[in-house]
Amino acid sequence: MSADAVEKLSPEQSWELLEGSVLGRLAVCVDGKPDIFPLNIYAADGKILFRTAEGTKLAELACNDNAVIETDSFTSRIGWSVVAKGRARTLVDSAEIEAADRSPLRPWVSGTKTTYVEIDVASISGRRFIFGPDPDREIT
Amino acid sequence: MSADAVEKLSPEQSWELLEGSVLGRLAVCVDGKPDIFPLNIYAADGKILFRTAEGTKLAELACNDNAVIETDSFTSRIGWSVVAKGRARTLVDSAEIEAADRSPLRPWVSGTKTTYVEIDVASISGRRFIFGPDPDREIT
Repeated sequence: MSADAVEKLSPEQSWELLEGSVLGRLAVCVDGKPDIFPLNIYAADGKILFRTAEGTKLAELACNDNAVIETDSFTSRIGWSVVAKGRARTLVDSAEIEAADRSPLRPWVSGTKTTYVEIDVASISGRRFIFGPDPDREIT
Repeated sequence: MSADAVEKLSPEQSWELLEGSVLGRLAVCVDGKPDIFPLNIYAADGKILFRTAEGTKLAELACNDNAVIETDSFTSRIGWSVVAKGRARTLVDSAEIEAADRSPLRPWVSGTKTTYVEIDVASISGRRFIFGPDPDREIT
């Protein structure tokens, strides 16, 4: 698909789309190398909550807490993408963990013991795309 | 959604899914901070081709050529995600650019002058998810 029009979204519009998303992609950097993980998210009040099993994601965030979450939705005609950046921290305070337990966040894998991670969003951006017909698709 | 089962895919299975994808997400690192961009991709022969306008993505890859592409597909019942890592380079050789012009890769935004970037994939991994019912979704 190829966008005929790209509209920059306001932070408010971007937050609205992010808060309506249950699935996102987390990118982190380790030793200057990027990595991406799909995960369930819960975004509200300027923060993004997700769960992670002990393992790669958590280990990578312990080395470098800069995190970015991307969420998007695309059809063949329209699409949008929101990117939220900030610092990630593991929730260790029992009151915070209890509040996270009450959130609508779903675990990514059922029955897996997980740790909550929260990103305090420092910047958010979003774009909306309108895709046109691809008249030359068949001849390329 | 919450996965009841997670299946690790073979490199061959991962490549098959990647090669069938037209939309992916590129993650890069700049000064130790991750960034993500949705884009059109064309994956074949161990490489991933995409186009980028002069701007952020290209500038970031010029600083650090480590790149990762994630592509996925999710419904409420099943999903898969493939992550491919490697080094990115801008195509400058005219024969390579002509070959890229003949590829089925679509530009992301119509009419925008773009540069081709190719990732030589060094590692690929994929996972398939089966999501179960969420009996407690309504009461959390």
